[in-house]
Amino acid sequence: MSEGKMTILERSDTGAVAHLKMNAPERLNALSDEMIAAFQAEFDVLREDNSVRAVVISGAGKAFCAGHDLKQMTAGRQSEDGGRAYFGDLFNRCAAMMLSIRSLPQPVIAQAHGIATAAGCQLVASCDLAVAAEDTRFGVNGVNIGLFCSTPMVALSRNIPRKQAFEMLTTGQFIDAPRAETLGLINRSVPADRLASETADLANTLATKLGAAVKIGKHAFYEQLEQPLEQAYAYCGDVMVQNMMIRDTEEGIAAFIDKRMPDWDQ
Amino acid sequence: MSEGKMTILERSDTGAVAHLKMNAPERLNALSDEMIAAFQAEFDVLREDNSVRAVVISGAGKAFCAGHDLKQMTAGRQSEDGGRAYFGDLFNRCAAMMLSIRSLPQPVIAQAHGIATAAGCQLVASCDLAVAAEDTRFGVNGVNIGLFCSTPMVALSRNIPRKQAFEMLTTGQFIDAPRAETLGLINRSVPADRLASETADLANTLATKLGAAVKIGKHAFYEQLEQPLEQAYAYCGDVMVQNMMIRDTEEGIAAFIDKRMPDWDQ
Amino acid sequence: MSEGKMTILERSDTGAVAHLKMNAPERLNALSDEMIAAFQAEFDVLREDNSVRAVVISGAGKAFCAGHDLKQMTAGRQSEDGGRAYFGDLFNRCAAMMLSIRSLPQPVIAQAHGIATAAGCQLVASCDLAVAAEDTRFGVNGVNIGLFCSTPMVALSRNIPRKQAFEMLTTGQFIDAPRAETLGLINRSVPADRLASETADLANTLATKLGAAVKIGKHAFYEQLEQPLEQAYAYCGDVMVQNMMIRDTEEGIAAFIDKRMPDWDQ
Repeated sequence: MSEGKMTILERSDTGAVAHLKMNAPERLNALSDEMIAAFQAEFDVLREDNSVRAVVISGAGKAFCAGHDLKQMTAGRQSEDGGRAYFGDLFNRCAAMMLSIRSLPQPVIAQAHGIATAAGCQLVASCDLAVAAEDTRFGVNGVNIGLFCSTPMVALSRNIPRKQAFEMLTTGQFIDAPRAETLGLINRSVPADRLASETADLANTLATKLGAAVKIGKHAFYEQLEQPLEQAYAYCGDVMVQNMMIRDTEEGIAAFIDKRMPDWDQ
Repeated sequence: MSEGKMTILERSDTGAVAHLKMNAPERLNALSDEMIAAFQAEFDVLREDNSVRAVVISGAGKAFCAGHDLKQMTAGRQSEDGGRAYFGDLFNRCAAMMLSIRSLPQPVIAQAHGIATAAGCQLVASCDLAVAAEDTRFGVNGVNIGLFCSTPMVALSRNIPRKQAFEMLTTGQFIDAPRAETLGLINRSVPADRLASETADLANTLATKLGAAVKIGKHAFYEQLEQPLEQAYAYCGDVMVQNMMIRDTEEGIAAFIDKRMPDWDQ
Repeated sequence: MSEGKMTILERSDTGAVAHLKMNAPERLNALSDEMIAAFQAEFDVLREDNSVRAVVISGAGKAFCAGHDLKQMTAGRQSEDGGRAYFGDLFNRCAAMMLSIRSLPQPVIAQAHGIATAAGCQLVASCDLAVAAEDTRFGVNGVNIGLFCSTPMVALSRNIPRKQAFEMLTTGQFIDAPRAETLGLINRSVPADRLASETADLANTLATKLGAAVKIGKHAFYEQLEQPLEQAYAYCGDVMVQNMMIRDTEEGIAAFIDKRMPDWDQ
């Protein structure tokens, strides 16, 4: 089987949950040009697919994701400008992919194990939710080779307190999953043999909710986080009205009052 | 006794502490039109009352507050526009009430027990401080009936880390008080039989401070949180000067230097 | 020996680590006019010194720092305006000094012990990293004498969750180092007899990193924290390109690929 775009990121669906598995284990699932493009292509499809209610991202082999592909980046230095234009384009494409996770209508869950470093740690931080095996090692260790993890820190520093983020970024030291849970980087640290099932349980829970409400809510969540308090209330008040006018929401509330299951069209 | 505006929110004062108790236990102290109006009326009075130094909010019956009044909201759908205008007005009034907590000169403490869900969880998050009985269940579970808790998340996501907030909002699952304390939603989880006394102790501690200094400080606290760092310092430097020029502050500092109790006019 | 500018803040360097020790133990290392000026003078020198890779701040005697010098401030009231102009200038100079910690190219570590209160707590919060002895008491207790810690709260409220910050500011109560670590105010709480060695270990770890990368990264860290997400990615993408074009970074990446130690010019 050839290693093309179709196999570097494998998609398998179970019910309303789409599962994207990075499949370049020999390179620790590095976020190469090809991997970034494969993620972007899947996200562009998922964005339009109302039948998918939750997305899980995992990695094949011993690591979740070890960050950018340093060999590919080094090869990029051969151009006349020493790689400057290529690097700029690479970080733009990578950021666009990370931002696509936020703008997807469906919640996205990182299912992390083994190693999640540099842009791999950023991928975990960029997901809406994250579950990890207890022995997963998280780090933004680019500083050890002279490349400060500046783009990963954008996501990381919006998940954990700033002194703890600064320490990870400047020491390059790893933290394990229980520590990542305490800091807020992940939602749950679980034994390795229950990682897949616990993540699936969470995804399935999300998939039973009213898709239109989750879509409205996820979008509003990130919008209002960056607004001053009063503006956030004005904006979210409008969002609540919009949500109230959905037919399935009217039915959901009526069913709750009547103490019965809702009969949703979704 | 008729159930009017005077009884839906009972006010009782102890010394310089005003206590507001929601009193609609049969409806789990829902934030109905009447309850929101009663809160707003009390806050408008308290704002002008320098003799009150701290405010406590609690609920009668088995719940602190279970959020909006879904039956009343459903009745609102009977109008020609399907309730759109009513809902918009309702969320505006509710947000204005929540923002009044922040703009009150006195610190406001939520004394939570039983259930604090949806807008009830928002009420806890909106208070400056919160104490809760250990078995209190907090949730933003509107998603379960198809109504994402978009306005509650404005307050919630400014109290706890974002992945944990997102999980609560999209799963609808409850957390208990010790977990709420760990995340930052409340200040203290205490045994149920000590809830009232521990909250009163905290309120009384606040009430002994110089009211003018607390008023200046509370206002500045929320203002500077939304400013860039340099602007926050410029602003708070001015606030410190203003505070230094208060006669009672001069006396407080002099008393400290002289190792005696201050003789405050307040 | 006269107590002049040279002795109120002692500098001693070990390798690439500069150590600044506040030396006014009889006044609990108060941030007097002289101490603020001494810090500013040292920071202005350190900013230009590429041979220094990390800075440690500690205090002589039984306290790290107990905040502003209240006797000096009280003396300032003697002027015609009751001290208004002096206080304004004082808080400006103090804020400029605290902001200099952020703008220094080197990471700055607070090594706290004993007492870190008011502007002393702000000094800990303003450092990039902090290590503290277990029995260190942290507080923003100005409210107890009628002077709300408004400038300290700028730094504090950017380190710890808001309800916990509000509680410290309005109750004036102290927290110990393990609690400060849990909240995010410090990185590590350690036994008192290991405070110096653990801080030195951390500083030495930072000093081994590529200085140019740490400088780029520290600056970007604070810049991006105050930007909306998309802007932060655009900005940090440029920072990553800039970092990639450094000769030593190219060598660091090449060495990593070749599994050898980098041969850095730094």
